[in-house]
Amino acid sequence: MPSSSAQQIVPVILSGGTGTRLWPLSREAYPKQFWPLGSERTMLQETAARARGAGFAPPLVVCGEAHRFLVAEQLREAGFADAQIVLEPAARNSAAAIAAAAALVGEGTPDAVLWIMAADATITNVKGLLAALEAATAAARQGRICTFGIRPTRPETGYGYIESGAPLGVAAAGHDAFEIARFLEKPDLATAEAFLAGGHHLWNSGMFVATAGTLLTELERYAPEVLAAARAGVAEGTRDLGFVRLGASFIRAPSISIDHAVMERTTLAAVVPCNPGWSDVGSWASLWEIGAKDAEGNVTLGPVATLGARNCFVRSEGILTAVVGLEDVVLVVTDDAVLACPRSRAQDVKLMVDQLKAAGRKEATEHRKVYRPWGSYEGVAQGSRFQVKRITVRPGAKLSLQKHYHRAEHWVVVAGTAMVERDKERILLRENESVYLPLGCVHRLENPGMIPLTLIEVQSGPYLGEDDIVRLEDTYGRA
Amino acid sequence: MPSSSAQQIVPVILSGGTGTRLWPLSREAYPKQFWPLGSERTMLQETAARARGAGFAPPLVVCGEAHRFLVAEQLREAGFADAQIVLEPAARNSAAAIAAAAALVGEGTPDAVLWIMAADATITNVKGLLAALEAATAAARQGRICTFGIRPTRPETGYGYIESGAPLGVAAAGHDAFEIARFLEKPDLATAEAFLAGGHHLWNSGMFVATAGTLLTELERYAPEVLAAARAGVAEGTRDLGFVRLGASFIRAPSISIDHAVMERTTLAAVVPCNPGWSDVGSWASLWEIGAKDAEGNVTLGPVATLGARNCFVRSEGILTAVVGLEDVVLVVTDDAVLACPRSRAQDVKLMVDQLKAAGRKEATEHRKVYRPWGSYEGVAQGSRFQVKRITVRPGAKLSLQKHYHRAEHWVVVAGTAMVERDKERILLRENESVYLPLGCVHRLENPGMIPLTLIEVQSGPYLGEDDIVRLEDTYGRA
Repeated sequence: MPSSSAQQIVPVILSGGTGTRLWPLSREAYPKQFWPLGSERTMLQETAARARGAGFAPPLVVCGEAHRFLVAEQLREAGFADAQIVLEPAARNSAAAIAAAAALVGEGTPDAVLWIMAADATITNVKGLLAALEAATAAARQGRICTFGIRPTRPETGYGYIESGAPLGVAAAGHDAFEIARFLEKPDLATAEAFLAGGHHLWNSGMFVATAGTLLTELERYAPEVLAAARAGVAEGTRDLGFVRLGASFIRAPSISIDHAVMERTTLAAVVPCNPGWSDVGSWASLWEIGAKDAEGNVTLGPVATLGARNCFVRSEGILTAVVGLEDVVLVVTDDAVLACPRSRAQDVKLMVDQLKAAGRKEATEHRKVYRPWGSYEGVAQGSRFQVKRITVRPGAKLSLQKHYHRAEHWVVVAGTAMVERDKERILLRENESVYLPLGCVHRLENPGMIPLTLIEVQSGPYLGEDDIVRLEDTYGRA
Repeated sequence: MPSSSAQQIVPVILSGGTGTRLWPLSREAYPKQFWPLGSERTMLQETAARARGAGFAPPLVVCGEAHRFLVAEQLREAGFADAQIVLEPAARNSAAAIAAAAALVGEGTPDAVLWIMAADATITNVKGLLAALEAATAAARQGRICTFGIRPTRPETGYGYIESGAPLGVAAAGHDAFEIARFLEKPDLATAEAFLAGGHHLWNSGMFVATAGTLLTELERYAPEVLAAARAGVAEGTRDLGFVRLGASFIRAPSISIDHAVMERTTLAAVVPCNPGWSDVGSWASLWEIGAKDAEGNVTLGPVATLGARNCFVRSEGILTAVVGLEDVVLVVTDDAVLACPRSRAQDVKLMVDQLKAAGRKEATEHRKVYRPWGSYEGVAQGSRFQVKRITVRPGAKLSLQKHYHRAEHWVVVAGTAMVERDKERILLRENESVYLPLGCVHRLENPGMIPLTLIEVQSGPYLGEDDIVRLEDTYGRA
């Protein structure tokens, strides 16, 4: 474990969501927290950056096995090479993820304060949030599990609410913490309007502050099976290429949210009301809500042209997108999938993704660009008996030593330098040089340089599936 | 000129339209008549195929210079290698195109009957049309200029109408020709409903039948400037690679439709009412009208998924397209452009294309796949200092002998066989073989085989524009 004094707050970032309602941008293989949605940085990077500085320990990120290299790379890029990345063998909802984090931190420093955040929300006023954090931390040090209650700015029917009770009097940085009178499920519009007018109801933001010790105690009391599974997972855990890989026992944890497991039952719950410009970015409609609008109320990103369109959300990742005369519509264009729906039905995107999955469409869960520990690849053209990929290899990275039974490959370097191993040969390729890899040859690609290596791979053969790959040796433990 | 007896009808196909309202499928560089819209064959091919058989001479197609290889290739593919292709140096509307055709045919056989058709309309009942043609031909041989009047099936406000008068009594194949009482501009809905109820009003289909002699006489009388320019264009005309290239004088012709120039003024106009399932395919809304609908009234083509959508037109050329809950919307997806609009505003697509042109977007007028006399090419990937193209060369075709000042190229053959000339060398490349073309080398690509050649070209260099090409020799007269 990285060292963290009891005085330092440990940011715990939950990165297990799949963000299905933001399809086709967000997909299981590369969900929304890994995309830049509110700024130039990804939501995971923004979340980590909120807790940077002397008062904070390095972040602890809980994520799925499949996203491990993505998380590591994005954190490294954002200056968090010292982050601890905890891998769940399978997603088991927030209670189990938090239990594992509390167990890990609690081993050494039970008094350490954890600041638990979802990786997939946006905050426009980080200073405001940090001020609220001071009050929440004060409450946590008094043994509370404190949540952030967002003051409603509209009669939102899509969120759960918290009704606040008596003040705790921990007043810090202009904020106080309050008892929680009750948790409320998503209200109807009339109720949401009454909540907005009354001033005692807050949006449940899914951020929490508590010491590891308090969390462990309350999990023990209210969700002992969750805690037992998480503790066993930690005990069986292995350190692997810098990751903490939880053991298989973790999977025994019941799948339950921390709200249902603990918050709604403990007597230690508290809430700090605040207004940090929070959004859960739960659907394309919420991105329209928080987006910068043109004179006609449209939010547009990428190469988009509108003519007489109003109050639309239009995002294109590159393909020219023209909208004439539509109102209140969401249109999202990626290189391999397009989604169109009324803004009012943005929640139903999830149902469409289910339908596409059932139909076996791989676009439902995977992008054309595929991330690997060494970089990424992307299919750019295919035909009968051939396909063309663009491959990018990070400086210093190395693919597995491999061979194929059904395809030959041509590699043309278009940027950077490649070291190619082909059977017993080692060949250095510069920009604009190429190599041929006959069927069956044992080969390996490496970027020995200081800048990314880009090459165009032309595959020829009767079968071109990703599974025709025999890995003889692999730096990333995949052989 | 191909031989045509006075007894044979000469199909004259006007292929000068740009089909802007069917953007992004139809674009100036490859407009709608070259696309399959109503069937597996392109509209140009369908139009030519309507007039196949003993009674017909080979078709005469009038088109723009820029489309010459496209027209020739599509006609060849449809079995009309003997077609006459007349190239306009610039588009001058239908009167001038018809005048040029009449002048060309009229030189040898003034009594020949011309059947003038737009290349960009669909007919579902060709037999019905050919029956109407018999009556129209009979009227034409009596010196009439006969049009086809489509019996309305709905109160359409988007078409011009013809009011029929007294019968001519040429009765043939169950049809008769009638005097034309008057031409009417696009009506309002109430008027269109009255037309539909009354039974004397017909849609103006833009198909005409007349002898070359009658057309020349009436053009001389009502549009002498048009005829003079067309005649001069024909007189200056050159034969070039099988095309008839009209001379520059053609451009002096006033840009006017045959309706305004002649039909609305001549005393020889006649109309044959008929019901051949005609559509002008003028907009995406008309394609929805004629398309096969699912239970929710959606017309979908390509990889499209709908969920709760109704009465939509959704077409994708390959990218997965998902529509949730929209009604009466048009969504068209190509590999480089997306259009969305309400069906009721399908006419305004033209305005969007104007806007995109003004913004300098090349997608407004050009596709990613570019057609050349030898085949086609398509950009599939690009980055800083490189781009990747997929090139297809027709059997027996040959690119120009060329060199580049700013780029080197790798060619990898993925299908077929290539003969590559590189400086003094000649290299035969089979599938899965490659060649490197250093900057400045003189090279040429040829497909010596019997099947199409496909290769992947990887270009490297600081400047990769299409204009860095020095043509030293060219089979297609482009050097």
